[in-house]
Amino acid sequence: MEDLTPSRIVRLEDDAVVLLDQRRLPEEVVELRCASAAAVADAIRDMAIRGAPAIGIAAAYGYALAVARGEDLDQAFETLAAARPTAVNLRWALEEMRSEPTRERAREIHEDEVERCRRMASHASELVAPGSRVLTHCNAGGLATGGYGTALGAIRSAWEQDLVAHVWVGETRPRLQGARLTAWELEALGIPFAVIADGAAASLMAAGEVDCVLTGADRIAANGDTANKIGTYALALAATYHRLPFIVVAPTSTLDLDAETGADIPIEERDATEVSARFPARNPAFDVTPAALITAIVTEEGVHHAPYATSLPMPTRSARL
Amino acid sequence: MEDLTPSRIVRLEDDAVVLLDQRRLPEEVVELRCASAAAVADAIRDMAIRGAPAIGIAAAYGYALAVARGEDLDQAFETLAAARPTAVNLRWALEEMRSEPTRERAREIHEDEVERCRRMASHASELVAPGSRVLTHCNAGGLATGGYGTALGAIRSAWEQDLVAHVWVGETRPRLQGARLTAWELEALGIPFAVIADGAAASLMAAGEVDCVLTGADRIAANGDTANKIGTYALALAATYHRLPFIVVAPTSTLDLDAETGADIPIEERDATEVSARFPARNPAFDVTPAALITAIVTEEGVHHAPYATSLPMPTRSARL
Repeated sequence: MEDLTPSRIVRLEDDAVVLLDQRRLPEEVVELRCASAAAVADAIRDMAIRGAPAIGIAAAYGYALAVARGEDLDQAFETLAAARPTAVNLRWALEEMRSEPTRERAREIHEDEVERCRRMASHASELVAPGSRVLTHCNAGGLATGGYGTALGAIRSAWEQDLVAHVWVGETRPRLQGARLTAWELEALGIPFAVIADGAAASLMAAGEVDCVLTGADRIAANGDTANKIGTYALALAATYHRLPFIVVAPTSTLDLDAETGADIPIEERDATEVSARFPARNPAFDVTPAALITAIVTEEGVHHAPYATSLPMPTRSARL
Repeated sequence: MEDLTPSRIVRLEDDAVVLLDQRRLPEEVVELRCASAAAVADAIRDMAIRGAPAIGIAAAYGYALAVARGEDLDQAFETLAAARPTAVNLRWALEEMRSEPTRERAREIHEDEVERCRRMASHASELVAPGSRVLTHCNAGGLATGGYGTALGAIRSAWEQDLVAHVWVGETRPRLQGARLTAWELEALGIPFAVIADGAAASLMAAGEVDCVLTGADRIAANGDTANKIGTYALALAATYHRLPFIVVAPTSTLDLDAETGADIPIEERDATEVSARFPARNPAFDVTPAALITAIVTEEGVHHAPYATSLPMPTRSARL
């Protein structure tokens, strides 16, 4: 089995943040050394590391590295925070670090995110019926969270309880995080799966081959509207039409209670060449699924149902373990 | 402007069917010579030529070539008919050829399909409001029909009447017919467009950036259920949710009145390696959009509305022009 321990995915060394370069998976398993906060920001922007919790952790390590190197900390904060605009975990982790700028605090944030994953996975697995064929999108696995995973952690926990028959993995254009990263993790875990074109999900639902949809989140507004990887909203529409549970699994560090609704969430537009190198293209990296289409939001605190404005917990500071 | 005349897309020469190799567009504009009915069947199976009307035309030429070469005609019929199972035009064109096995008849079928496109495009353009931002999927252009196009023909006709502001082109995984072929045709026609990941369509609708959806069809059942390229059904669901017109444009040669509903339409499963070369995958090439989600079906005979069981015309034999 591939080594998917938290320290393998991202860690802080004396002079660098070292991370598994996710752009090169599954073909090559290679590490990338980032020797400054700016280098960590580049790695986040270029998606060498991605996934809302994982980029929060990487940013925390990057900030700790900036402290050790005597970098300008305001500038390190801003450079890291600007690397990707949609995931709120990035800013959350940086604010944690600003109030307690130590290496120990960064490692605690990392350990705590993994521990949150285990708790939310346990809660979410209660929503998975025996024999389920689960559909997921993008990568909400250990690679996305610094270990264990959110939606994929829930699938893993449910699989270990013998509840999962099969996993459908949306390939997730344009960057193919499903086809590359989720497939790689599922293979390592020994869970049966098949990759599909994103456009094939609805027809599998119509054919009765899907029992529920589990995805992660990059930012959740106070009313439950959820920003996640582009293509998630189309899955929620199809799941709703077919009366299938559509479940979001994400830590409270993903909650942005300052955003009243999804309309307050900034959506990153990435370079059009990721979609087409030859012709004009548009490349929104995320979309917003309205709360009305979401059956449940699962955090480390438990399972939350509509109305989310009253049921969602407060984002919790990562506790000493 | 690129040469998109019907004879450039596919034609019959003395000793071969010659077609523009669509697998190599847009990078290379090269012709493929098919010197037997079996070679034409290979070209259809491998998608050197694709699109329901175009493969019907290629099959008609392939049958005429088999006649000229003294091939076993029953075997030529079966080999060509089996090349791709979903498009009904293939069998329709072969049955036309069996009852009148001449080169002239094959050319007539080709000319007639192009003429039908012009008529259906004119009808369909009446459904396009001024200033429309039209979303389309796959390639339903001249390349798919032997000239002019169905859904893309309608966009072209509407553009010439100054009704179209912009075209969104779903890239159409896994074979990227949108990103490669539709984009290439739109560039040649000078119509403004942008390619998007298939999963981005719903969020553009939510943002109010889409006014209607136009697609082609590979087979239409008697009740209006429509098989088209995988991903079409998800677009119809999203269009319905956003109360946008979802319009199918296809010739009567695409109607299969022997299929009562979409459940009677065979769905081709293509090689999984088209989706993932490394991991397990599923690759249904088409999906079925239920008639209830279709605002209108436009054929060369006019605009048809629900209930389609009574409004759809009979498939018409291609007339002498």
